[in-house]
Amino acid sequence: MPNLDTVIVRDVGLRDGLQSLARTVPTDIKLQWLDAAHAAGLRELEVGSFVPAHRMPQLADTAELVRHALGLPELRVSVLVPNLKGAEAALASGAHSLLVPLSASHAHSLANLRRPPDEVVVDIARIRDRRDATGSACRIEVGISTAFGCTLQGEVPPDEVLRLVRAVLDAGADAVGLADTVGFANPLQVQGLFEAAAREAGAPLACAHFHDTRGLGMANVYAAWLTGVRRFDACVGGIGGCPHAPGASGNVSTEDVAWLFASMGVPTGLDLQGLLDLRRRLGQWLAGETLHGSIARAGLPRTLTGG
Amino acid sequence: MPNLDTVIVRDVGLRDGLQSLARTVPTDIKLQWLDAAHAAGLRELEVGSFVPAHRMPQLADTAELVRHALGLPELRVSVLVPNLKGAEAALASGAHSLLVPLSASHAHSLANLRRPPDEVVVDIARIRDRRDATGSACRIEVGISTAFGCTLQGEVPPDEVLRLVRAVLDAGADAVGLADTVGFANPLQVQGLFEAAAREAGAPLACAHFHDTRGLGMANVYAAWLTGVRRFDACVGGIGGCPHAPGASGNVSTEDVAWLFASMGVPTGLDLQGLLDLRRRLGQWLAGETLHGSIARAGLPRTLTGG
Repeated sequence: MPNLDTVIVRDVGLRDGLQSLARTVPTDIKLQWLDAAHAAGLRELEVGSFVPAHRMPQLADTAELVRHALGLPELRVSVLVPNLKGAEAALASGAHSLLVPLSASHAHSLANLRRPPDEVVVDIARIRDRRDATGSACRIEVGISTAFGCTLQGEVPPDEVLRLVRAVLDAGADAVGLADTVGFANPLQVQGLFEAAAREAGAPLACAHFHDTRGLGMANVYAAWLTGVRRFDACVGGIGGCPHAPGASGNVSTEDVAWLFASMGVPTGLDLQGLLDLRRRLGQWLAGETLHGSIARAGLPRTLTGG
Repeated sequence: MPNLDTVIVRDVGLRDGLQSLARTVPTDIKLQWLDAAHAAGLRELEVGSFVPAHRMPQLADTAELVRHALGLPELRVSVLVPNLKGAEAALASGAHSLLVPLSASHAHSLANLRRPPDEVVVDIARIRDRRDATGSACRIEVGISTAFGCTLQGEVPPDEVLRLVRAVLDAGADAVGLADTVGFANPLQVQGLFEAAAREAGAPLACAHFHDTRGLGMANVYAAWLTGVRRFDACVGGIGGCPHAPGASGNVSTEDVAWLFASMGVPTGLDLQGLLDLRRRLGQWLAGETLHGSIARAGLPRTLTGG
């Protein structure tokens, strides 16, 4: 029987969700979004990314979002950074965590980060040095993306993923997670790779990040949970879909992940009705985008709503 | 590492799918459906139910469907029967398997079968006697429904489910499976109850039957598979939804289950493109009904289609 310790859901909609959309959501809407996510019980949010504004104008207001988020009680504020320069901005912003993405797929790494994985490892060591030099308590987390396959490269060897888990921990990362960036993972593969990575790291991994491209998102969350993972990325409304896969879902939806754990008796601190309310508002703010997820379609069971 | 033995998917669309619809599908369409399902690699089909025609006119042509299905090579033909009289019709029809539903929920049993579970157990013993007396090789299978909860009764005690597993095997059933009739199950519950039932039965259970009401269908299939189950009910297009849960999905969709196992490297003999073609035809035959499932929405990955 696995332990039923609290699971943390980190909503990454303001980063992973928005970076895939062509539109730019106004900052005042994002602040309402942040407040509503916090009110629904989310205690960790990835609020943006410190990338050059000309490369990702949708996320140019990240520093302002961090500032606002730091004022919300008990909220862990996380940002994505692609390199040392981004990490310096993150350290200056006061964010609690910075996430460095590293592609296990060599091809994806070159296309997305413009350098091979091992150069990112070197950068992680530099980020660690800089963090320690500033005396910041900011947590350095690495998300190993395309860990379960890659649209460019196809198969990604598990041994390469495990080598990189070891390498980023050796380079000074405080935590490491695995991401199924393109929605290729199946639960058997998830369970096997997360188990092997936990052996490599000496403890269950810090985070799992799944997309629901072909309907296996919840099964993958469950499979990773079985290996001891107790922290999951998700997006309200399942936004964050790959624009090159029409009809496909994006990230696993926060409300479905919340429902999965609620039904299993695992505490998350999340308010399902609050998440569904935020989803409705997202539907207005992102009018024209397709939202995904099952629990919003089926409705909460009466046992939860008292209806 | 679980074994990767062949998994059998039993499509129950012609029974579970159609019995929930008000419309009656003409027999000639059902025969095309049968042929297409067989052509897509399905080797076990539940083609109908031997219930009084006035109670379920949609399934009044079950004997004709069995006759046709028996002519298709390597196809196991299964029918549902509610009682001894139905079982006699099944034995006379030449079907390879008859499935007796038994509700673990006392309230559901009274509402659906008009008698408590233990009277159904007595009936199973009678069905076994009759089967043996006729010298038929028809397999007697029991599906324990509402095993994970019930809309009428709420919680269904796991001990009651396990008692009934034992009781139906003692009464002479050849095989027993568990069904989440109303879509209440979560994967942790599924794994726990199927494991306990396997200990009770001395072997993994013969079948698992899930609905995808709130998006946990695939996770539940995976969880049951981890306990050794190698046979799953499903419906092309995820039909079979409860008419009392608007927007909710029905049974797990055959094409999604096929995709889950294909992605895990588990053989099923199913032709995913053939299943998607049948789904398209179902969409025409059942015009106005909502079809469900993820793989049809996202499309097969290029690695499978060669596109």
